[in-house]
Amino acid sequence: MQRYFVERENMTEDIVIVTGEDVKHITKVMRMNIGDDIICSNNQSRTVRCQLVEYSDTEVRARVIEELMPNTELPIKVTIAQGLPKGDKLELIIQKGTELGAKSFIPFAAARSIVKWDQKKSHKKIERLEKIAKEAAEQSYREQIPTISDVKSLHHLINHSLSYDAIIVAYEEAAKNDEQSKFVQTLNGLTTGQSILVIIGPEGGLTSEEITYLKEQGATICGFGPRILRTETAALYALSAISYHFELMR
Amino acid sequence: MQRYFVERENMTEDIVIVTGEDVKHITKVMRMNIGDDIICSNNQSRTVRCQLVEYSDTEVRARVIEELMPNTELPIKVTIAQGLPKGDKLELIIQKGTELGAKSFIPFAAARSIVKWDQKKSHKKIERLEKIAKEAAEQSYREQIPTISDVKSLHHLINHSLSYDAIIVAYEEAAKNDEQSKFVQTLNGLTTGQSILVIIGPEGGLTSEEITYLKEQGATICGFGPRILRTETAALYALSAISYHFELMR
Repeated sequence: MQRYFVERENMTEDIVIVTGEDVKHITKVMRMNIGDDIICSNNQSRTVRCQLVEYSDTEVRARVIEELMPNTELPIKVTIAQGLPKGDKLELIIQKGTELGAKSFIPFAAARSIVKWDQKKSHKKIERLEKIAKEAAEQSYREQIPTISDVKSLHHLINHSLSYDAIIVAYEEAAKNDEQSKFVQTLNGLTTGQSILVIIGPEGGLTSEEITYLKEQGATICGFGPRILRTETAALYALSAISYHFELMR
Repeated sequence: MQRYFVERENMTEDIVIVTGEDVKHITKVMRMNIGDDIICSNNQSRTVRCQLVEYSDTEVRARVIEELMPNTELPIKVTIAQGLPKGDKLELIIQKGTELGAKSFIPFAAARSIVKWDQKKSHKKIERLEKIAKEAAEQSYREQIPTISDVKSLHHLINHSLSYDAIIVAYEEAAKNDEQSKFVQTLNGLTTGQSILVIIGPEGGLTSEEITYLKEQGATICGFGPRILRTETAALYALSAISYHFELMR
């Protein structure tokens, strides 16, 4: 069944109001009619099945039929801090990372990031990434849309990292040096509801200065197996492994 | 250090000869000179560091300096049987799946596959996919380039599946029904050197007839967590989880 996120204030006990681009999607793309069912989430852990009762060009009204308990969020809150990659890789990371359960994304300007975000265009870029996250969250039955922050510096990232229960850094030199178990050890130390920050370098990787700094700040340097993963693959590996560990091996 | 795969007959005890497009890559793109080092694999588990001794427009000759023991292949041989997806998704699956350690890929025509491969163009398409696999294998330090077969039918796939130690099917209805542990159970039953066939449906998923048939043939139906993954994400999830299980948790 088709899923949509609505604004919190647009979901009351009995009625859901869908606005914006989703109206066109419901009425024109899906060609739904009065009496058809959709599933709506308020992005605050309430998800309901509801029935279309009325629509116009600008909004769709639906009556709540059933409270759903989808429970599709990862048991561990995962934030992906991604060194700014080239081209459309960030879009891929956000689309796939959303499917795989990330709670938030923080792009950061790493020493080897070639791309720089123009301050003026930054707002538009984030809007576009948020749209990708919303669509991926709907498609994958998420209850929450991951948040996407503006580009940070590595220092800013670390200065705001006190709230995480664990911080790991994906480092390809660790992979080359056959470092295999620190990621597992870190996950073994976490329990449901806790949070982890996963820091991933851009195409050229993190510099040894960045790694030294991150170690000093208490981050755990991890390898993701013996093969060298492209930057966009590392995030997907981390999220898949976290899902496997906490959702499948439970 | 840059890596290249060479034909088996082009790697003797002392000398490696690089031919084809890699010659241009070494001499023009990387601008290497006599005395520079490269790493070469013969796609048969022999990997050496070697030094350029001579080059022309058509070949590069290098002297073997050191035998390397990279050990970058997954301990379990994973074949991804992928229901033909739309657009360039198969390219993404093969690039990322190679980085993540897949041994081979078998595209198959599923009931809901919208794309059909024209017999005439099939050869060209596979050539292109093989090139993607070779480049991803070089980039990720693989010792072997995954093989890519021509498009099969599901029956053909099953009729040739006796050689696998396990067969699993990614099924989103299993994910919705909260099936969490069969994938873990299957991996727990495998040991180093054994093989697994992972069957993944196309965009619309496998039909219930296909699922029934696969069950009858002894395949294990698995969910990959509670979220609904796009077809191209499922292969990456399976490979990441297998790496985590066999390479990191060891």
